[in-house]
Amino acid sequence: MIYDISMSIDKNMKVYKNKAEKIPKLEFTKSHEKDNMCESRIILEMHTGTHLDAPYHMLNEGKTIDEINLDTLVTDCRVIDLSHIKEKITKIDLEDFHIKKNEFILFKTSNSSNLLFNPNFVYLDKSGAEYLLKCGVIGIGTDGLGIERSQKNHETHKILLGNDINIIEGLDLKDIEEGIYKLIALPLKIKGAEASPVRAILIKE
Amino acid sequence: MIYDISMSIDKNMKVYKNKAEKIPKLEFTKSHEKDNMCESRIILEMHTGTHLDAPYHMLNEGKTIDEINLDTLVTDCRVIDLSHIKEKITKIDLEDFHIKKNEFILFKTSNSSNLLFNPNFVYLDKSGAEYLLKCGVIGIGTDGLGIERSQKNHETHKILLGNDINIIEGLDLKDIEEGIYKLIALPLKIKGAEASPVRAILIKE
Repeated sequence: MIYDISMSIDKNMKVYKNKAEKIPKLEFTKSHEKDNMCESRIILEMHTGTHLDAPYHMLNEGKTIDEINLDTLVTDCRVIDLSHIKEKITKIDLEDFHIKKNEFILFKTSNSSNLLFNPNFVYLDKSGAEYLLKCGVIGIGTDGLGIERSQKNHETHKILLGNDINIIEGLDLKDIEEGIYKLIALPLKIKGAEASPVRAILIKE
Repeated sequence: MIYDISMSIDKNMKVYKNKAEKIPKLEFTKSHEKDNMCESRIILEMHTGTHLDAPYHMLNEGKTIDEINLDTLVTDCRVIDLSHIKEKITKIDLEDFHIKKNEFILFKTSNSSNLLFNPNFVYLDKSGAEYLLKCGVIGIGTDGLGIERSQKNHETHKILLGNDINIIEGLDLKDIEEGIYKLIALPLKIKGAEASPVRAILIKE
C-alpha cells in the first residue's frame, strides 16, 4: 500500500509567508489546440511544497542536493503523532518516543490540517534538534513548510544539516497513522542546488 | 545497492535538439555572502533529462502527471541490452526477450554512451510499441531523450500513452548490466502537467 504524502504543486498551494514570488508558475509552450501535443515548463522555488533541504542551504561548505546519499532517502521511517503540540517541539516532547540510532522520524502535527499558511506553525526547537542529534537519527520530516521559525541564526537547521541529517519539509501527513513505514523521498539531481522538491511516499508492507 | 540512473540537471546537460531554451536555469535568490544562507529557483522544462511522460503529453483527454498511479513506478523492472542496435528497436528485436504481462522494461542502448545530443538516437518504432502493448507491459524506459523520432504523428508515444503505459525518457544506463531490479521513478506532483523530471534509481537486493 502506497501513501502519497506530497503536497500538490499548483498555483493555489500553500507557500511560505504567502509570498507571491513563491507560487510556482507552469507555462505551456506547446498546446493540443495548436500543436497536437503539449509541453510545459515551470518556474519553481526549490523550497516549494514537499522538499528536501541539503546542508548547502545553511552551510557554505555543505553538500548540495545532488550530493546527498540516496540510501538515507529510501529507508524505514517512523511517523510520530505530535498533534497535541501548539507551539514547538522540544526535547521533553520527544523523550517518551525512545528514538534510536539511524531512525528517520516524521512529525505529524496540527500543521497537516492547515490548508492556509499559518505564520505560527508548529516547529522543532533547538533543544529538540540537539536531542535528535544525540539519538543519532538520519533524517527528520515535518508537515510544516519549515522545520523552524522564531529562532536566531537558524539553529535547528544548522544542528541537523551540519551533521548531514536529512530535513524534509512540507509533508502532508493528515491521513497517516503513527507507525513504521518505508519512506521514499528522492530529490531531483539538480547540480549545485541547496534543496529540491520531492515526491514523497510511504509504503506499508 | 542503489544505482542512480538519472541525468544530472545542469547548464551543460544534453538537451533535445540542442535547443537553448531547453537548458535549465538555476538562479539563486539568496546567497551565503549576503544572506548567511542560500535559496534558489529553477526554470525547468518538464521533458528535461530523466523524465516521465503522462498521457496528456500526446492525448488531450489523457491523464496528467499528478494523476499517474504510483504503484506502477515503484516496481520490479528488467533492463535489456540493445547496444547492438544502430537505428531503431522493432518487434523483431524484442521477440527473443520473452517479455511478459506487467513487466516494466528498460532499454539500454548506445544512447547511454552519447554525452552530446545525437539527432539519430536509437528509438522504439511503431512495430516495437505495438508488440510491447500486446505483451502487456506497464512501462518502458529508454536512454534516449525521446522514445521516438522520425515517425509521423508520434505513433510510438500514442500507442503507449493511449494505453496508460508509462514512458521514462533520458535514463542513464551506461553502468547498468542486464537483469532484474527494483525501479523507483516518481514524478513531482505538478497539477495539470504533461510530464515531470524524476530521480530514477534501480535497487539490486
